[in-house]
Amino acid sequence: MTDHPLVLFMPSGRRGRFPVGTNVLEAARSLGVYVESVCGGRGICGRCQVEVQEGQFAKHGITSAKDHLSPFGPKEERYAALRDLKDGRRLSCSATIAGDLVIDVPQDVAVNAQVVRKESDGRVIARDPAVHMCYVEVEEPDMHKPLGDLDRLKAALSADWGYEALDVDFHLLPGLQKTLRAGEWKVTAAIHKDSEGERARLIALYPGLKNEAYGIACDIGSTTIAMHLSSLLSGRTLASAGTSNPQIRFGEDLMSRVSYVMMNPDGREAMTLAVREALNGLIDRVCAEGGISRADILDAVFVGNPIMHHLFLGIDPTELGGAPFALAVSGAVTLKASEIGLPLNAGSRVYVLPCIAGHVGADAAAATLTEGPHRQDEMMLLVDIGTNAEIVLGNAARTVAASSPTGPAFEGAEISSGQRAAPGAIERVRIDPATLEPRFRVIGIEPWSDEPGFAEAAAGVGITGICGSAIIEVVAELFLAGVLSEDGVIDGTLAARSPRILSNGRTFSYLLHEGAQRITVTQNDIRAIQLAKAALYAGVKLLMDKQGVDHVDRIGLAGAFGTFIDPKYAMVLGLIPDCDLDRVKAVGNAAGTGARMCLLNRGYRREIEDTVRRIEKIETALEPKFQDHFVAAMALPNKVDAFPHLAHVVTLPERRTSSDTGETGGRRRRRSRD
Amino acid sequence: MTDHPLVLFMPSGRRGRFPVGTNVLEAARSLGVYVESVCGGRGICGRCQVEVQEGQFAKHGITSAKDHLSPFGPKEERYAALRDLKDGRRLSCSATIAGDLVIDVPQDVAVNAQVVRKESDGRVIARDPAVHMCYVEVEEPDMHKPLGDLDRLKAALSADWGYEALDVDFHLLPGLQKTLRAGEWKVTAAIHKDSEGERARLIALYPGLKNEAYGIACDIGSTTIAMHLSSLLSGRTLASAGTSNPQIRFGEDLMSRVSYVMMNPDGREAMTLAVREALNGLIDRVCAEGGISRADILDAVFVGNPIMHHLFLGIDPTELGGAPFALAVSGAVTLKASEIGLPLNAGSRVYVLPCIAGHVGADAAAATLTEGPHRQDEMMLLVDIGTNAEIVLGNAARTVAASSPTGPAFEGAEISSGQRAAPGAIERVRIDPATLEPRFRVIGIEPWSDEPGFAEAAAGVGITGICGSAIIEVVAELFLAGVLSEDGVIDGTLAARSPRILSNGRTFSYLLHEGAQRITVTQNDIRAIQLAKAALYAGVKLLMDKQGVDHVDRIGLAGAFGTFIDPKYAMVLGLIPDCDLDRVKAVGNAAGTGARMCLLNRGYRREIEDTVRRIEKIETALEPKFQDHFVAAMALPNKVDAFPHLAHVVTLPERRTSSDTGETGGRRRRRSRD
Repeated sequence: MTDHPLVLFMPSGRRGRFPVGTNVLEAARSLGVYVESVCGGRGICGRCQVEVQEGQFAKHGITSAKDHLSPFGPKEERYAALRDLKDGRRLSCSATIAGDLVIDVPQDVAVNAQVVRKESDGRVIARDPAVHMCYVEVEEPDMHKPLGDLDRLKAALSADWGYEALDVDFHLLPGLQKTLRAGEWKVTAAIHKDSEGERARLIALYPGLKNEAYGIACDIGSTTIAMHLSSLLSGRTLASAGTSNPQIRFGEDLMSRVSYVMMNPDGREAMTLAVREALNGLIDRVCAEGGISRADILDAVFVGNPIMHHLFLGIDPTELGGAPFALAVSGAVTLKASEIGLPLNAGSRVYVLPCIAGHVGADAAAATLTEGPHRQDEMMLLVDIGTNAEIVLGNAARTVAASSPTGPAFEGAEISSGQRAAPGAIERVRIDPATLEPRFRVIGIEPWSDEPGFAEAAAGVGITGICGSAIIEVVAELFLAGVLSEDGVIDGTLAARSPRILSNGRTFSYLLHEGAQRITVTQNDIRAIQLAKAALYAGVKLLMDKQGVDHVDRIGLAGAFGTFIDPKYAMVLGLIPDCDLDRVKAVGNAAGTGARMCLLNRGYRREIEDTVRRIEKIETALEPKFQDHFVAAMALPNKVDAFPHLAHVVTLPERRTSSDTGETGGRRRRRSRD
Repeated sequence: MTDHPLVLFMPSGRRGRFPVGTNVLEAARSLGVYVESVCGGRGICGRCQVEVQEGQFAKHGITSAKDHLSPFGPKEERYAALRDLKDGRRLSCSATIAGDLVIDVPQDVAVNAQVVRKESDGRVIARDPAVHMCYVEVEEPDMHKPLGDLDRLKAALSADWGYEALDVDFHLLPGLQKTLRAGEWKVTAAIHKDSEGERARLIALYPGLKNEAYGIACDIGSTTIAMHLSSLLSGRTLASAGTSNPQIRFGEDLMSRVSYVMMNPDGREAMTLAVREALNGLIDRVCAEGGISRADILDAVFVGNPIMHHLFLGIDPTELGGAPFALAVSGAVTLKASEIGLPLNAGSRVYVLPCIAGHVGADAAAATLTEGPHRQDEMMLLVDIGTNAEIVLGNAARTVAASSPTGPAFEGAEISSGQRAAPGAIERVRIDPATLEPRFRVIGIEPWSDEPGFAEAAAGVGITGICGSAIIEVVAELFLAGVLSEDGVIDGTLAARSPRILSNGRTFSYLLHEGAQRITVTQNDIRAIQLAKAALYAGVKLLMDKQGVDHVDRIGLAGAFGTFIDPKYAMVLGLIPDCDLDRVKAVGNAAGTGARMCLLNRGYRREIEDTVRRIEKIETALEPKFQDHFVAAMALPNKVDAFPHLAHVVTLPERRTSSDTGETGGRRRRRSRD
């Protein structure tokens, strides 16, 4: 031990030497290690808990032991007596350094009995929220120094918390006197400071110690809206809720909603109102589930595609309906929740992530933030499939983005038996290459169609259509079974072998299920899927050209579609380029996670703003090669590209076009080489 | 002539050497000389006009000539052809330096046919408003660079005007697309930036060149509200209007309004609404008179005493009704006009000057700014008389302030025949010392009461009471005529000599007028005036003690009362300390002028904020000597102080108390020595 022991903070890994007797909280702050504290070191909020890791850390040259911290002090005794202080935990505002230490700053300090829900992803987000809770004791009024109540509050916030130039939300003024007196001159101030270059701002004030603050993160999808409620102090997610986007009644897909705005004078307003009402409903639900009130919510982060983004903010999206697809605003937007009719705390702020381009929105930006292609050396492809596919491809050196007009086929629109993912929809399909007989699975029914109990269950649920994931699978399985040629034509000659191949005059279709509803896959359905996947693939290919690569190292499939499709089938169809299938992952609601990251750590706001500025935007409509790529990509899996990784998992049919068999299907049926 | 001629800008006196060919606007800006420009040097707004002063300026070593500027350029030719460019005026964005120059930056550049009203004071206020108008040409949307409309606007504001980190009022977003397209990508942005330390903010946006912007300055008095409309670009006052404060229906004086709030649950709200409605009415009037729309008003400055200040802002003033007289806020307050229901431009800002203490408000701060005791070496006394007198005493070295509880006597309340200054009120009084006969003047009647035509006019108007100025005069005249003793007792023995002296049993009164209404001055009236003036004088004396002075160099009497009272009579009564009467001045609505200064030049906001922080506040209630001063000051003009300057204008009666004549008046009547 020296007079200046070495202290290492984990998980940040920051370290420094400090004189014996230095307060741990101060040591952490001097190194820029984020440790929460609401009470400013008075030992009453319990937010600044840390743990000592004991042992020899040879790599760091530290032998750390619990008694290298000062013994339990009176502040800790009092806190532990009043509240739950877990064994081994210390209050960093009380404990002082007595020797070398490895100190763990836990990311899950819960001081209240919070309802904590299982996270959709286990991601721990380092905290540094835009809103801080600061407890202060304010001088009482004094006739000799007639500073106003607010001015004395500001003086306390400057002295205890270092906020020297502090702006104040005007709405707080009328209630200020009461709050200060109700707290007997002890209050907790909520201070909003988003970036370093901006002045801190008092946005809420509570009497006494207010040891909690919450925020919401929300992804506004065209189809569904998902919201999470998180504690800004512990980082924990308390509640999540989702609902379908009520704008659907104005139009299923994005372009029909833009048309609605163009055709109806009050269309924009009606859709803005609809989405905000849905958000209000979700806020009610997460507040009820989390056991908090709306007034406890001090910050909110939103993402969405450009049209959702504009409608949410009350901006006319008409310009996004045609070239040059001009966004009203592409940069991040900050505002007060009250400015858009979201009744959270009166001082609550809203942060909306930047949009990348006219068809690549804040949702794609958020997904990029979550998956971080810009943070890694590997070349990563990130795809979010909707009516438009938003595509980001890049690594730390360079990131490019584009959108491709896939149309709504992947969502089941334009498909004869297509439907939304809901009970009764076929979601998985396998076809026996020998018999051409299918087996499938239906949402809401546990057994596969060839397993015991299926018929009984199906009688109850009903089999009503095919959802997006099954559309991909059935087309891929038809191709693997040799029913489809490379250019996607159903081989009519197979009708002789299987009653599943039905003739419709000049074309054929495949009978997937005969029941109350006959479910078939028509030649037109296959054409629709080919068009959609060719558009997606052409966009991806264009970005690969820009990056000068012929393969990608990782693929992330975002959104609901990405969650449910099997990467293998996506590759069989040629939706995505060749890649090690182990490295193709559904990344879930990456956009929602990105929103939550920005909620809990304002540093991520700057990261994504900088990243979006640096992303190169490719407008597919302006790229002559897009059309070539599109035509080539109509073939299954693709006319020009090789899929070496696919050979490890499936047996692709030999390359064979419909001309080999004649337009209505030939007689020969070849299997691929082994 | 050298390669780097010397250029002197007037009236600022700033000077520098510049290469031949330097643009005059750039030269001015590089020296920090404020020259307005909306179009950013495109020669279309005409705001940057300057004049060359010709001649030899030996003191500065400059020989200035008009041809030391470049000849009329194409921008000036075009501007002069389209608009009125006065002879000798040049556009500083076009003219370049060719030799030594003395350049005058006029403060009255009017480019539109403005209705210009005669200013109440001729004061020219150097301009540097918080809101700037910035014309820019924005890049059109481009699919290759999918920056949003707002982002391209920001880029233009950064490139042309240097606003790099620009915040944006959210309310502008929904209308942004239309404005940009309506202006064919040429727009004028209104940028608000109050202080250097704060980020600039886009608050309004207009299609094309918007070559005007307006602001209002307003003094909210307990009795009357006065508003001025000024051009932020030319500095000219276009319109002024005043109205009585409708809060009067809740209580005549300040304390009765505080009581109303304390007694009525909705009292605060009702009074806030009342004053804001009155302000809205005034806004309508100044807009109509100035020929502009409310949406053209982008900035507003308000002052008022602490209770008016609180009620205007929607803050409960109850705390101001009792010790420790705690202000909710003492510092300057900034907010959006929309936050307090003032429908100006949706982005319009409001600035409220700081209050000095619980009874010394933003009006006193504004008057201090106008009269500037803190800017001069002489010791200046500034007094604003209302229910409380707000008193500021100081010079550049030190300034102190206090309020004194004068009560409403000076306003005519508590006076038996007292009334507001309105037609029918006696406003001037003279009493003949020999005959004790009065002559007086009545508001609304031109002749004095002893002049031809008075009786006829009085029959029409009616004589109904005495207003504040006449109360001072009649008491002073009674004292000078020997009717009152030094301690303010009416000499009853004079009843024998004059029928004007009436007996009321133990006390006497003076009959000023016998008509439809009998107007008398009672012993109680005189006591009320004595109490009021003693309170005022004791406050002044206390501040003189603090400053360690026994006289003051200048006195400014602010407000309506200050405008109408005769300084001589104020000194005879001992309202104000001895001073050269030529240096006692009514300073009119100094508070309103201070508000206008802050509207037109944000530098004055910092000046008054700094000054208020440095002013030492004296709470009279806590000062033991206040009571002594008060008792001494009950005498006429004062028991302990000498008034040498008064001897030059009036003949004071010999010192004589009522004990010399007996409580009910003695027989002897002495005149002063000549």
